[in-house]
Amino acid sequence: MRDKLMPDMVTALKEAGLADGMAISFHHHMRNGDHVLNAVLEAAAAMGVKDLTLVASSVFPVHQPLIEHIKNGVVRAIDTNYMSGPVAQAVSHGLLETPVIFRSHGGRPRALREGSRSVDIACMAAPTVDRMGNVSGILGPSACGSLGYAVPDAECARHVIAITDTYLDKPLERVSIPHDRVNSIVRLDSIGDPKGIVSGSTSMTRDPVALAIARKAAAAIRASGLLKDGFNFQTGAGGASLATAQYLREDMIRQKVRGGFLLGGITKYLVDMLEEGLFEAIYDVQCFDLAAVESIGRNKAHQEISADTYANPSRRSCVDYLDVVLLGASEVDVNFNVNVHTDSNGIIIGGSGGHNDAAAGAAMTIIVAPLIRARLPIVVDQCTTITTPGKTVDVLVTERGIAVNPARPDLADRFRAAGLDVRSIEELRALALSIAGEPRKVAFTDRVVGRVEYRDGTIIDAIYMPA
Amino acid sequence: MRDKLMPDMVTALKEAGLADGMAISFHHHMRNGDHVLNAVLEAAAAMGVKDLTLVASSVFPVHQPLIEHIKNGVVRAIDTNYMSGPVAQAVSHGLLETPVIFRSHGGRPRALREGSRSVDIACMAAPTVDRMGNVSGILGPSACGSLGYAVPDAECARHVIAITDTYLDKPLERVSIPHDRVNSIVRLDSIGDPKGIVSGSTSMTRDPVALAIARKAAAAIRASGLLKDGFNFQTGAGGASLATAQYLREDMIRQKVRGGFLLGGITKYLVDMLEEGLFEAIYDVQCFDLAAVESIGRNKAHQEISADTYANPSRRSCVDYLDVVLLGASEVDVNFNVNVHTDSNGIIIGGSGGHNDAAAGAAMTIIVAPLIRARLPIVVDQCTTITTPGKTVDVLVTERGIAVNPARPDLADRFRAAGLDVRSIEELRALALSIAGEPRKVAFTDRVVGRVEYRDGTIIDAIYMPA
Repeated sequence: MRDKLMPDMVTALKEAGLADGMAISFHHHMRNGDHVLNAVLEAAAAMGVKDLTLVASSVFPVHQPLIEHIKNGVVRAIDTNYMSGPVAQAVSHGLLETPVIFRSHGGRPRALREGSRSVDIACMAAPTVDRMGNVSGILGPSACGSLGYAVPDAECARHVIAITDTYLDKPLERVSIPHDRVNSIVRLDSIGDPKGIVSGSTSMTRDPVALAIARKAAAAIRASGLLKDGFNFQTGAGGASLATAQYLREDMIRQKVRGGFLLGGITKYLVDMLEEGLFEAIYDVQCFDLAAVESIGRNKAHQEISADTYANPSRRSCVDYLDVVLLGASEVDVNFNVNVHTDSNGIIIGGSGGHNDAAAGAAMTIIVAPLIRARLPIVVDQCTTITTPGKTVDVLVTERGIAVNPARPDLADRFRAAGLDVRSIEELRALALSIAGEPRKVAFTDRVVGRVEYRDGTIIDAIYMPA
Repeated sequence: MRDKLMPDMVTALKEAGLADGMAISFHHHMRNGDHVLNAVLEAAAAMGVKDLTLVASSVFPVHQPLIEHIKNGVVRAIDTNYMSGPVAQAVSHGLLETPVIFRSHGGRPRALREGSRSVDIACMAAPTVDRMGNVSGILGPSACGSLGYAVPDAECARHVIAITDTYLDKPLERVSIPHDRVNSIVRLDSIGDPKGIVSGSTSMTRDPVALAIARKAAAAIRASGLLKDGFNFQTGAGGASLATAQYLREDMIRQKVRGGFLLGGITKYLVDMLEEGLFEAIYDVQCFDLAAVESIGRNKAHQEISADTYANPSRRSCVDYLDVVLLGASEVDVNFNVNVHTDSNGIIIGGSGGHNDAAAGAAMTIIVAPLIRARLPIVVDQCTTITTPGKTVDVLVTERGIAVNPARPDLADRFRAAGLDVRSIEELRALALSIAGEPRKVAFTDRVVGRVEYRDGTIIDAIYMPA
């Protein structure tokens, strides 16, 4: 029986049949500590392979070497759910010949399962691997916790390479990806820098604006009528979102509410709520800090879920059961459309991730954002890029007031009855303009550098290169 | 959002689109305590549906009502891996118009994945289900532990109905099958009789013949050179097999060997070995007793695996990493072919289950069987039915001596060097004959009542109706 362990990356890629024009995939659980994507592309470049399509669930600043690989023709196209740092900036300025296809964390597994996005070789950063090829995300020096985003790739790619710095000769006690989905194994000295994979600890914000937003957001949840036993909740790791979670925690203790599940990128604050008995379970597609990684190893009710189970829109997924999700924004327009793809200069700074998935699923989607950021209004007439359609966004909470989507008069009534500071979004827009003034209009060329594919596969926007 | 909970079985089947000629599937973790298969067929019969193909991973005595459903035309064909009791007897005597397709526990998921066996509706016995449709095998009054055989059905069927007696309004803390694979939920008063699902406790045999076989089998393992750190082991729950495991345990303690994984149907004796630190992990596709069910809830290193991970031959699966497997036989012929499908009268009494999968994978496959059973020789000139090809069988251990497949002279040398009682299989055959005499030849008609599909999809034998 052939040993799955390959002597080096080039051998593994050759054995996998890597050839010009293929699609190779990566998950982003190593985040900005990832060493794997760069190592694979370096090997592909050394082999002289050209025209690869990179199917990476996210691209981070650490992936700067990708710029050279694109210039040299090793990589020709990118499919991703999120992109930040030098690659995003270079792509914004026309680095790629073809537009980046931006998906969501739920749209990506949908595309993989239906075959509209095929993958030849999945190159899986694997914190610990045993001889058989079982993969654990929980063990090893590069532990990242959940490997949820790697699951669809492991199940759909033609060939799967597990890339690890921790190779065990004994069978794994905890398996994230079973060995029968792994074709070969490659060792690297290190698959990731722990400091970049997870933050050691997420610290609570002291920013008074973020705290003001959080107080209002918590009040909105309280007033919504949704905060009762079985309450299912997702929040991001942004300052205002985490602070809202803390206020929510206090409300739940006071009102003796026991929630259902916590979802999404998991932090210490959510783990604390599980361990305090405020929620039944954490369904974890990605750990954001060390406390979450430790918890998934320790708490049985802290369970790893796949990207499909999290948000695949072709099934009913976890997001469809959310009562409340808190999400951020770089822009919100007067139709409640949200942009988390580009900044006010039209430069790519992110992508949906799970943004438009969770917004589509949740009973109440709250955008938490300051009215003004870096002296620019966040509430705008029209988003530079639409990440999340306004029809899936219910509430915008800013430090200067709360706007409710006119499609949800029920919520506006509840908020007003609770004495919340409800304003029309046009009023918030005017207020932002009165403080920050009308920003300089960014001029764009007609060159498309990115396309935004909504979670269901429809293209909802294009990203143009700034002039 | 539509509630997944259906008011009753008929509504669930209608909503799933059940129609004449469809294929409906069942897993066998409820074993001889199962109430689900009968309940579904009763509903289908009430609906007037005809010509169903039953894709059941096993059929047990409790499924006797199936006979009437076949006679009434509700069920037209059966695909299964194992069949015993009244249905098996009736099928042997020509109940079905078309032959039963017998698969193995690894061949079934292969066929489902490749699409050679499609399933319209998976009817999943689900010990505990939450409102979203998450399924746990570990919780509830009908807990069966692992749901490994249900995983391929959940992933491949067009529609999945979770059938439960324990419906929770809160999210499950432990998920075997994630909710995104479950389309609807039906409640039954009871999905199974706990006494039939698992035995309360597996008791060790005191049968002197079984103990004699076990002592020889343990000696063979000791002599094989395979019993060293990392040793991976599977055994069934038969008397001689479990007794061998007990002797093996003593050897491992004495020799300070730490094994790798334990595989297959799991019992208290294997759990004890895990908890004593003799093995790293249990990979569990099915629990055979209550101690195993409790262990999978308690021991993190006791892990649920799917039928694919266990034995799917289109991937490299757990069986391929076995050092030793102990398997039973109703007949072994002089070419080491093994029959576990039919008895000496040609009546269907079982099926491969994982027999030919584990035999194909293991470095050493040991058949443990008495030379004579119920006054009939077990070693025969030619098996009535071939379940497991002789080329995958290495050793036959009987109470009267050990036969080694001539293809494995290395093993024969080791056994002889260790002073074991090695005989040729022809010698064992002659010895059996000299004791039991030549049994009456069973006469068969030319009517085929079953076909044996080997794990890779090739048909390796036919089962004929006795005259």
